Amino acid sequence: MTRGRTHGVAVTRHVEALLTVETPGEGFTDLTREVAAFLAEAGADTGMAHLFCRHTSAALVIQENADPDVRTDLLTALRGLAPEGSGWVHDLEGPDDMPAHVRTMLTDSALAIPVRAGRLRLGTWQAIYLVEHRTRPHQREVVLCYCGSGAR
Amino acid sequence: MTRGRTHGVAVTRHVEALLTVETPGEGFTDLTREVAAFLAEAGADTGMAHLFCRHTSAALVIQENADPDVRTDLLTALRGLAPEGSGWVHDLEGPDDMPAHVRTMLTDSALAIPVRAGRLRLGTWQAIYLVEHRTRPHQREVVLCYCGSGAR
Amino acid sequence: MTRGRTHGVAVTRHVEALLTVETPGEGFTDLTREVAAFLAEAGADTGMAHLFCRHTSAALVIQENADPDVRTDLLTALRGLAPEGSGWVHDLEGPDDMPAHVRTMLTDSALAIPVRAGRLRLGTWQAIYLVEHRTRPHQREVVLCYCGSGAR
Repeated sequence: MTRGRTHGVAVTRHVEALLTVETPGEGFTDLTREVAAFLAEAGADTGMAHLFCRHTSAALVIQENADPDVRTDLLTALRGLAPEGSGWVHDLEGPDDMPAHVRTMLTDSALAIPVRAGRLRLGTWQAIYLVEHRTRPHQREVVLCYCGSGAR
Repeated sequence: MTRGRTHGVAVTRHVEALLTVETPGEGFTDLTREVAAFLAEAGADTGMAHLFCRHTSAALVIQENADPDVRTDLLTALRGLAPEGSGWVHDLEGPDDMPAHVRTMLTDSALAIPVRAGRLRLGTWQAIYLVEHRTRPHQREVVLCYCGSGAR
Repeated sequence: MTRGRTHGVAVTRHVEALLTVETPGEGFTDLTREVAAFLAEAGADTGMAHLFCRHTSAALVIQENADPDVRTDLLTALRGLAPEGSGWVHDLEGPDDMPAHVRTMLTDSALAIPVRAGRLRLGTWQAIYLVEHRTRPHQREVVLCYCGSGAR
């Protein structure tokens, strides 16, 4: 294990904006470019980007952006881990609602990603996705925040 | 995808407090009101609230606060994903201990929620829960933090 | 539920460093000591430590550090939840790659842990682990950040 040089800056600002996303129904929407645009507008330099999904049947994940088959298989996995028609007690909002709550519990409501020189420090193959866990399209809200140096 | 107006403030303070929770045994305890009370006492304005659960057999989730059947089904799902009596090697602390560790891995040790004008930016149906994954009641500790403007 | 005394400090610095970890193949690497060393070098006092894993087939978890059987069982659980040979569409990078993506989705890309008086506020039995989800050894990068008071 090796640790690189420590880099420090003065924390000056917390900046936020609300992102509204129209999902296509069950599946992934890539938010990476929008988060980068927010950081540019915020004048971000070095700090943390935070994302928060304001829903209990949609969530956030960081996953591979190269082969779209990965996202297909991730949906298959989530369907297997929390299937429809498993005798859920909560079925007032349709057969896809309770599985969507379970899948939200297994994925993330919140993410935090380091930022340096204004850029997300994602790995080469990482992208930030909103996962719609319901079957039909929904309008979803994600709060974007930046805390660190250089922001205005 | 549309992004609302960017709102920025000067970051001034990090504030923390320790929350001690008596759980009823396996199940959910709503912490939302306590986190809001902490933010009020801290004089929080705009920033991030962080929660951290200091245990490996209890965890945090953000989930629906409307129909209690949702929590019943979430417990059923967790029992199915990490059942007792599955031949776990680690059984020194009772049959419910290793399933509780797996369920902790599938839920969250840490959560971060944006705060604006002193209020948690949760969605309409979101509440913050401590999930006790052990069968019997336990005393659990959750560290509450706020980082942002306006705190004292 | 009882809440202890509120403790506040001025936020002054965000500090970061890159940790490079050689994993032994599928399994856990304890990062706790390295994160503590980073906080010491950063001159951390009170704030938040953030970790971010720059990969989609390795992840972070906070788990029990006492009985190593717990980690054995956690791997067994992850293998059961996302098995090899389940007919995954994405198989270009070997049979262990798609299960590793699913296991990454079920564990964490990012963690945040409160720091007080320079020390991680982990519970008695908690350690911070990097989980290698691929079968073979890999070199992995974890970004370490601290945001709070006292840093230089």
